[in-house]
Amino acid sequence: MSRLGRKRIWRREERRKVEYEARNVREILKEMKDISELIVDLSYSAILFNNEDLVEEVKYLEARMDTLNYGIRMQAMLAARDAEDAAKLAGILQVAEAAETISNAAADITDITKLKLEHPLIPSLFRESDEIIVRARVGQKAYGRSAYDLHIRSRTGCKVIAIRRENSWIFAPKNEPFAEGDIALVKGTEEGIEKLREVFYE
Amino acid sequence: MSRLGRKRIWRREERRKVEYEARNVREILKEMKDISELIVDLSYSAILFNNEDLVEEVKYLEARMDTLNYGIRMQAMLAARDAEDAAKLAGILQVAEAAETISNAAADITDITKLKLEHPLIPSLFRESDEIIVRARVGQKAYGRSAYDLHIRSRTGCKVIAIRRENSWIFAPKNEPFAEGDIALVKGTEEGIEKLREVFYE
Repeated sequence: MSRLGRKRIWRREERRKVEYEARNVREILKEMKDISELIVDLSYSAILFNNEDLVEEVKYLEARMDTLNYGIRMQAMLAARDAEDAAKLAGILQVAEAAETISNAAADITDITKLKLEHPLIPSLFRESDEIIVRARVGQKAYGRSAYDLHIRSRTGCKVIAIRRENSWIFAPKNEPFAEGDIALVKGTEEGIEKLREVFYE
Repeated sequence: MSRLGRKRIWRREERRKVEYEARNVREILKEMKDISELIVDLSYSAILFNNEDLVEEVKYLEARMDTLNYGIRMQAMLAARDAEDAAKLAGILQVAEAAETISNAAADITDITKLKLEHPLIPSLFRESDEIIVRARVGQKAYGRSAYDLHIRSRTGCKVIAIRRENSWIFAPKNEPFAEGDIALVKGTEEGIEKLREVFYE
């Protein structure tokens, strides 16, 4: 498995096993960091475009974060052999807790889409934003090729920040080949996002 | 003043005025969004490198966020003319509250640097990170020229995500000319950050 392939998150059906056996504290915290960095941008893009797809991604990631925070507490307790270990692991749990707080706050941001305001003021707030995030279904033209192979960065200026494959996410998937059914979370300017169409479909 | 120049945050001494007179809800929320997006990445980079400079930036931004959240509540109350207005503004305050929660959680992340752990486990956690954030003093060679003028993106692959000028920040400062005393917050790979030295100094 490639270095980047390891970034793939375990699928839902594997979670129970993952929490208690397979993954160590370091791997879980890395995933929590990735999620908390992504989910903030994602939540603002969701309300900016009143985009239900992005709201759904935020909810999925928030649920995933809950599971991870539970798992990391379990693993930390199992890993602590002495007081020195315990002190280090307590620090890590503090970071994990903050990461979960961030993801909960991001979900709170998307909750305003539920208010169904008649003339929402929020979307008009962020016109100055240079970059947005969109959820794009990966087209057949891109199957078997990675963002790197497809020169997405140089052709569109966009960055593929995550791929969702069924119930798992792959973060920073530069060298991960796209597959049928993949959903890409892409960050870029509106102009760049428009060009992405050519890469995936035309 | 250029479109990007408007992104500049008011200096500390102007804050009192800002909160009660000059800035509207939209402008304040925009700044809160910018800070909450930046501060999460910044806090992880701070603990990854046990970097006191970045911890300090996080603390500054957190304090700024407190001020902004207070200011936006004031402005929202003053702006509401009827029930419809109030409903919209309540939604905005919900987003503002979440943005502040995110910034507080980011500050909590940096608090683990206070633990002064002898063999900290955290720095070893993020080796896979592609990109890091550093705080770089802008060199004389760059005064009067913007990140765009200096071709920083194409020469180094790095992105200048903010400039701190005395007690104010300029977010996404692509076209803002650097000035003496500027501190740049730059995101990029270790290799890219290394190349930045040439742009600013050599």
